[in-house]
Amino acid sequence: MKKIITISREFGSGGRSIGKEVANRLGYKYYDKELVKHVAAETGFAPQYIEEQGEYAPGKHKFSYAFTAPGSPGIMDGLSASDFLWNIQRRVILKLADEEPCVIVGRCADYILRDRDDCLNIFIHADKEYRADRIVRLYGESEKKPVKRLDEKDKKRKVNYEHYTGRGWGSPGNYHICLNSGLLGQDLCVETIIALATKEE
Amino acid sequence: MKKIITISREFGSGGRSIGKEVANRLGYKYYDKELVKHVAAETGFAPQYIEEQGEYAPGKHKFSYAFTAPGSPGIMDGLSASDFLWNIQRRVILKLADEEPCVIVGRCADYILRDRDDCLNIFIHADKEYRADRIVRLYGESEKKPVKRLDEKDKKRKVNYEHYTGRGWGSPGNYHICLNSGLLGQDLCVETIIALATKEE
Repeated sequence: MKKIITISREFGSGGRSIGKEVANRLGYKYYDKELVKHVAAETGFAPQYIEEQGEYAPGKHKFSYAFTAPGSPGIMDGLSASDFLWNIQRRVILKLADEEPCVIVGRCADYILRDRDDCLNIFIHADKEYRADRIVRLYGESEKKPVKRLDEKDKKRKVNYEHYTGRGWGSPGNYHICLNSGLLGQDLCVETIIALATKEE
Repeated sequence: MKKIITISREFGSGGRSIGKEVANRLGYKYYDKELVKHVAAETGFAPQYIEEQGEYAPGKHKFSYAFTAPGSPGIMDGLSASDFLWNIQRRVILKLADEEPCVIVGRCADYILRDRDDCLNIFIHADKEYRADRIVRLYGESEKKPVKRLDEKDKKRKVNYEHYTGRGWGSPGNYHICLNSGLLGQDLCVETIIALATKEE
């Protein structure tokens, strides 16, 4: 029985829908953007800002060091805003995982919770055609071509993951199982995850 | 329902044992070294030679072109022995897959059968500690350190796969599912594969 399920996913692969459905069926808490609220409460940062920084490229944005002025010692501890947020987010994830069974999507949760043996770590991916088609259906057209949107989002997630974990994003070795949602379909992914999570050891 | 199950695997991950058990339980034919017999029958090459060449590095061995002497036109068609064997092995795999349900371990079967939609493609992997421990238990000690044996075998499989398929060995995108046998254990891998293979579509 796995108390925590972490889901890493390529953009557009349906990892979030799969995670939500797994959480619903198992009666687990579900966190992805939800996490932002908890982090916002701890930091006072605007939720939108945390959402953008929480999973994306580290260290290179205009707010870095903006809050480390003399007079506010200790608040940021001299860290960049990205690193500061990473630390808070890490603490929130460790705390939530301790509280009750949950599904956590993204945010390097597989790495942050690597010392627990009640975690099931999943990677969801699919080919670009499937994902491009899916994001256009879900989020509509935009000025950017769908494949460009995929590449940009994935690149940001990859850079963020590799920066903070030192491991390869989407490398099978990080996960119990990698599921190709394009080939298997969402339902079969959900069923496979539930079967693995509920297995008595 | 998937009629064909292909299993690619890191050396020592237990992919072969998992494949055999899946075949047993489903009543499917099982091929890995078995394939060699079929290829030997078609070519007249010694089984041991085929076994070595069938999955390992292409094109760089002393028998290349050895049989293309004038006087035996058409037999090797001017191909290197590796490419010649690859062609025969490919033909044998396509034929066996047509005959009856089967599990095929290794030999780029996932790629060779990529146009069929009744194939379930699996990659089995595990961390080096698990695999090193397992090969020493199964095959005994040797002069080479276990991790060196793993690296050498995996490298050969990788070079062979990438040469003949143009795809990355162990890249999640090539497979329906990648299973970490070190974290999941053999039984759970077997059950997961059977659940996916027997699912009615």
